[in-house]
Amino acid sequence: MKAALKQAEKAIAIGEVPIGAVIVYEGKIIARGYNRRNTDKTTLAHAEIACIRKACKKIGDWRLEGCTLYCTLEPCQMCAGAIIQSRIDRVVIGTTSPKSGCGGTLLNILQNPDFNHQADVLYGVLREECTEILQRFFKDLRRRNKERKKMLRLQQAQISEHPVQIQQAQISEHPVQIQQAQLSSQQPAPHEQEVIRQ
Amino acid sequence: MKAALKQAEKAIAIGEVPIGAVIVYEGKIIARGYNRRNTDKTTLAHAEIACIRKACKKIGDWRLEGCTLYCTLEPCQMCAGAIIQSRIDRVVIGTTSPKSGCGGTLLNILQNPDFNHQADVLYGVLREECTEILQRFFKDLRRRNKERKKMLRLQQAQISEHPVQIQQAQISEHPVQIQQAQLSSQQPAPHEQEVIRQ
Repeated sequence: MKAALKQAEKAIAIGEVPIGAVIVYEGKIIARGYNRRNTDKTTLAHAEIACIRKACKKIGDWRLEGCTLYCTLEPCQMCAGAIIQSRIDRVVIGTTSPKSGCGGTLLNILQNPDFNHQADVLYGVLREECTEILQRFFKDLRRRNKERKKMLRLQQAQISEHPVQIQQAQISEHPVQIQQAQLSSQQPAPHEQEVIRQ
Repeated sequence: MKAALKQAEKAIAIGEVPIGAVIVYEGKIIARGYNRRNTDKTTLAHAEIACIRKACKKIGDWRLEGCTLYCTLEPCQMCAGAIIQSRIDRVVIGTTSPKSGCGGTLLNILQNPDFNHQADVLYGVLREECTEILQRFFKDLRRRNKERKKMLRLQQAQISEHPVQIQQAQISEHPVQIQQAQLSSQQPAPHEQEVIRQ
């Protein structure tokens, strides 16, 4: 689980929700993955899915029998489904997910007796560390969002107090960019474009 | 659904279970996929997952809001989970899957009120065609398996009737490979290896 936590730290470093996972086969880590959903702009960039893709490549089979997956957060419906489809034997979970947890919190996809495979599940390994890294990320995110909103309010207040001076100051600082922006947004007539070019 | 069935035909052509899917956005097919699980040796080669990967790339976002997914077979737990995670609005299903169907047959992942997204689901579109293509594939598979077993029984009968002649015939045809196979399987003592080398 410490290796999975290291992967979660990599997610934080690129501004993603810190979720990490590793797959162990015959006592060795054969695949590592971390959440890159916003960075890669694909639903399939969850930590567990990245791990399963790498492990299949390593083993050369879509069946990952004999493998154990360690994940810092309880898998969602997609990842839990992929674990069952790849016949992973054992899942070790750090902390639970109240929003999309499908290892027992909202639903138990990992151990549904109607499916043709069920995984052994161990909960709460390094629970505190796995919870703390998420709390730290969301606390920091809230702080940054608050600062951004404050800054935006300040700017809006300045514009409404001194609209002309601020526009003129902006033009003298970045005249070309602002003129171009005005051009593309306002779509002036051809003769107006001529004036700007001169 | 006809486009999804065309994808399923592609799966048959490479000896895979014929399952196909397409994703439609603003009236146009933006992604196509078919089952390649054994060919690509990865759990993630299901038709729907291939479609979702391509659609995310096309739209440039992990959110596929406004999209409709057409699939010839009811999605499994992984694919249904991926549909919910990618926030696809609508799923059109050809035929149901009694073994792993998670659009209502074994479980309804597509419309679970506890998740933060639910999809509209339409069942039974081109049901007969979608069922027939699967039945045709499995009928053909059973026939081929039966023929293979018959051939194997015939070979075993020949070996038990004339063991020496057959072994000698095999040796004279492929002497080196058979000697090597004997070496590795029987692990002879060093002096026996010397005899073979001569």
